[in-house]
Amino acid sequence: MLGFRMEPDGHADMRWDELDQEACPVARCVAVIGDRWNLMLLRDCFMGVRRFEDFQARLGITRHVLADRLRGLVAADILRRAPYHEGRTRYEYRLTPSGMDLYPVIMAMVTWSNTHRLGAEGRPLLYRHKGCGKHFDAKLVCSECGEALDPRHTNVEMGPGMPSDQMLRHAPVNT
Amino acid sequence: MLGFRMEPDGHADMRWDELDQEACPVARCVAVIGDRWNLMLLRDCFMGVRRFEDFQARLGITRHVLADRLRGLVAADILRRAPYHEGRTRYEYRLTPSGMDLYPVIMAMVTWSNTHRLGAEGRPLLYRHKGCGKHFDAKLVCSECGEALDPRHTNVEMGPGMPSDQMLRHAPVNT
Repeated sequence: MLGFRMEPDGHADMRWDELDQEACPVARCVAVIGDRWNLMLLRDCFMGVRRFEDFQARLGITRHVLADRLRGLVAADILRRAPYHEGRTRYEYRLTPSGMDLYPVIMAMVTWSNTHRLGAEGRPLLYRHKGCGKHFDAKLVCSECGEALDPRHTNVEMGPGMPSDQMLRHAPVNT
Repeated sequence: MLGFRMEPDGHADMRWDELDQEACPVARCVAVIGDRWNLMLLRDCFMGVRRFEDFQARLGITRHVLADRLRGLVAADILRRAPYHEGRTRYEYRLTPSGMDLYPVIMAMVTWSNTHRLGAEGRPLLYRHKGCGKHFDAKLVCSECGEALDPRHTNVEMGPGMPSDQMLRHAPVNT
């Protein structure tokens, strides 16, 4: 369970501590990243940040909140603790393979902001692909045919892993 | 401002109501989607859900919380209210072009969960690309050369839109 918090108005109709038990693949990912601090921490991890003090300095959050979020991300197998030596043994936080695979989520967010939330002064950060040497945007394509994905050109269907008691609330309304 | 809540332990070092003023493109997107309900609502929007009662039935949240989140998503130009007639005039919620462009974020989450959070029973939902007719995974590629993106093969650089007073906390630690 990650980042469960009772909402200020006290409702808890859908249990966030059971979100990773939901069949929906979006819900299972929201259980990990559906928290602002977790997303900002992940951003920093992909920027190469690894140490507690560096996370804290960049985010300006309390040690308590930071430790809580790091603990949760380790428990979810997104980060792992790795020892390093600086006088005494300390620990830094590195992305696991599962954490590395969240890169498309973060880069999809970057591309959206560069399209819809850009100031007149231009892009604040530039992303360069070492492979081709160019500044790039992240582009989401179909794994089968390579065409750019458009929500108007896709459909959702029930799969074998959908429990019958969750079908109703996950039923797509395809158009 | 979207979904600002004081954390239970009372810290507010980084002001969430100013998150959309941060230069970082991840932060600007977190200002919109860094809330569990917003993400779950977006998921349902991409499933074709449009009406207040349908969102409520699927998510099981209070009318108050749902109305609050829908209002925020309309204010952020992610959803728009569109009238429909059913006896009297009512309103449904449709994705704006800016909302439609969040599709890659949602589909990147789906692909991650299908890779790292899949039960033995298999995929709960299948996504079919109308273009090629096949079930697909969302794949993130470089807009310039079309190669699959790997965080180990990209670099981050400061761009013209990065204010000098934010450079330090956004500095990449490229490796």
